[in-house]
Amino acid sequence: PDWDITEVEGVHQLRREFRFKNFVQAQAFTNKVADLAEEEGHHPAILLEFGKVTVRWWTHKIGGLHRNDFIMAARTDRLFEG
Amino acid sequence: PDWDITEVEGVHQLRREFRFKNFVQAQAFTNKVADLAEEEGHHPAILLEFGKVTVRWWTHKIGGLHRNDFIMAARTDRLFEG
Repeated sequence: PDWDITEVEGVHQLRREFRFKNFVQAQAFTNKVADLAEEEGHHPAILLEFGKVTVRWWTHKIGGLHRNDFIMAARTDRLFEG
Repeated sequence: PDWDITEVEGVHQLRREFRFKNFVQAQAFTNKVADLAEEEGHHPAILLEFGKVTVRWWTHKIGGLHRNDFIMAARTDRLFEG
């Protein structure tokens, strides 16, 4: 329920906003997600702002959503909770 | 010339895209800009994607651009060149 499906330039993407108390915490989360992405060779868009990180997952190759994007979204949630 | 002025939800912002060979380099640049932001207590929006980082500077308090945003943009360029 925390993720919505958004359309960016005709491409469906999974998107969720994560809230933080400050910029340092938001930056740390950005790095956790980026490290996971690099590990998996699957790269989202991560928007880092003051107190907020917005993550979007989609599969470039198919220009849309693949099962793997939903898995990555769930793993992103675990990074947030952990 | 590399920065343009964009309007996001009625707020003028300075925006520039920086290109990188890979995600790791883009992530490293994201952290450089974020560290500078935290040092200065002035926080941009940083969008990290595969091979690309888009930085937007503006002044929250005045809902637009202040001289300081142009200084931060120039300092961001130096982080990119350095």
